[in-house]
Amino acid sequence: MRELVIGAAQLGAINKDDSRESVVTRMLALLDQAALRGCDLVVFPELALTTFFPRWYMEDQAEVDTWFEREMPGPATQPLFDFCREHGIAISFGYAELTPEGHHFNTSILTDKTGRIVGKYRKIHLPGHVEFDTERDFQHLEKRYFEPGDLGFGVWRNLGAVMGMCICNDRRWPETWRMMGLQGVELVALGYNTPSVNSQNRTEGERERLFHSELSIQAGAYQNATWAVAVAKAGVEDGFPLMAGSIIVDPNGFVVARAETNGDELISHRCDLDACQFGKRTIFDFARHRRIEHYGLITSRTGAEAPPEHDDA
Amino acid sequence: MRELVIGAAQLGAINKDDSRESVVTRMLALLDQAALRGCDLVVFPELALTTFFPRWYMEDQAEVDTWFEREMPGPATQPLFDFCREHGIAISFGYAELTPEGHHFNTSILTDKTGRIVGKYRKIHLPGHVEFDTERDFQHLEKRYFEPGDLGFGVWRNLGAVMGMCICNDRRWPETWRMMGLQGVELVALGYNTPSVNSQNRTEGERERLFHSELSIQAGAYQNATWAVAVAKAGVEDGFPLMAGSIIVDPNGFVVARAETNGDELISHRCDLDACQFGKRTIFDFARHRRIEHYGLITSRTGAEAPPEHDDA
Repeated sequence: MRELVIGAAQLGAINKDDSRESVVTRMLALLDQAALRGCDLVVFPELALTTFFPRWYMEDQAEVDTWFEREMPGPATQPLFDFCREHGIAISFGYAELTPEGHHFNTSILTDKTGRIVGKYRKIHLPGHVEFDTERDFQHLEKRYFEPGDLGFGVWRNLGAVMGMCICNDRRWPETWRMMGLQGVELVALGYNTPSVNSQNRTEGERERLFHSELSIQAGAYQNATWAVAVAKAGVEDGFPLMAGSIIVDPNGFVVARAETNGDELISHRCDLDACQFGKRTIFDFARHRRIEHYGLITSRTGAEAPPEHDDA
Repeated sequence: MRELVIGAAQLGAINKDDSRESVVTRMLALLDQAALRGCDLVVFPELALTTFFPRWYMEDQAEVDTWFEREMPGPATQPLFDFCREHGIAISFGYAELTPEGHHFNTSILTDKTGRIVGKYRKIHLPGHVEFDTERDFQHLEKRYFEPGDLGFGVWRNLGAVMGMCICNDRRWPETWRMMGLQGVELVALGYNTPSVNSQNRTEGERERLFHSELSIQAGAYQNATWAVAVAKAGVEDGFPLMAGSIIVDPNGFVVARAETNGDELISHRCDLDACQFGKRTIFDFARHRRIEHYGLITSRTGAEAPPEHDDA
């Protein structure tokens, strides 16, 4: 058995006025707990260092850029990496990345147990919209502030396992999971900031939203025979509620650990990476069962196109 | 609203000795119920006309071929088509198809309300194995008796909706759903014959098997904003138990109707096809959100390939 103790470090609300330093202090407190539990890897949410700023409409790019990190680690985040090295714990967390060339990405990183960054992912499936939308109950401007990720869906060998990352809305897209599954992924780390209500449909509340999130994560894990660690930014940020419900899912798709609160909370599970092998060798042995000659539209067609109406019987 | 009353006509056990005529009589009894409920479309299981014969190892091709239909409709199945026309009900069911050219497929058809066949699908994701497997608790020889389907994943306009089909194991593959989703599918009809126990893992019983089935169907429906009708061949066939649990799932992924028995049972639901539109226009508006430039492996690589071990950190 190849076992790793995986921690999911849910964060509660981060308001607009909360400094990165105050957030890092909270993350270090969760890492202290993780060290006591013997965690090998701790996963934090998407955009872990700040409030979920894409809910705020901004026209001044200089203001937008204040939410981004120009270096990683930087002065505010260095203590996280120091903790990794001192305690032999790997971490993954999300942040808004501003590159030296001026590109903006919704990014997550993965470190080894020395605090070295071994993997970087930039969010590919950006939800939301570009311009202020008067039809929505609140804004979700990820398509305004970020470019789609340009690194593809990678996996990395880390701590003896094949690890991948995705971010928030990516989890709803089976392509995300399959791209990593085709690279033999054994553990997917993902963070999210998910409003508790659908901004375009008030009747879709937390029950439905949690169901959709878990359904997508559980199906992705089962259908690719991988562990999944899904970590929320939760709580009410400046009046805007975010869904909690961080979970760890096994390669059969079953939830094995679940956060109980809307605040800072560590859940953990001892994950046997070899438990991925049964699925990968039997029902989801892709080499024996996939039929790529019939999947052409998946990579040749972006949008849906229904057959012409006149075909109707 | 475009509403259709959809029936899922679960069949209980069909033993080896049961004739096609006896099965068609049972199907007609379910169709009688469906007519009383005002069903527009009734979906029957995979290989609806016979026992699930791929559990039996056969070497004599003439014996194998006795399980196949050389024409559709044929003498035994003509009453089903007559019923369609007389009552204005469309049907879908599965059968083993032997073509004039000698090809063997696991097939399903879809009719309109006059009993005309408007769509045909041949199962693409064949599970199981080719040779007698002494390691299994029982055999699952679909790869021996069938060729992979050669018609791709189609959709058809029927009864004012865009309808697609898949069969049994296809439901576990997100590629199946996405291929139809990219063609604007609004209702997926699927039948299955699923053993209640995993032949390669006795600890995986009915609870896990039902969970995996529902998870895959619900995720496929939600992530493509389509209705799904999943219909079991259930009961104990010659001592071999099959999973029941036929369901109708809405475009949000929620189960709206579920069979309660292991026998012949009709469930139905009034399905609003326009309920697919919210998902197709917002979170799963493929044209705005899919990033096919990052999905390349899905159609270029069949099996999984993990990164080399020496990359390990």
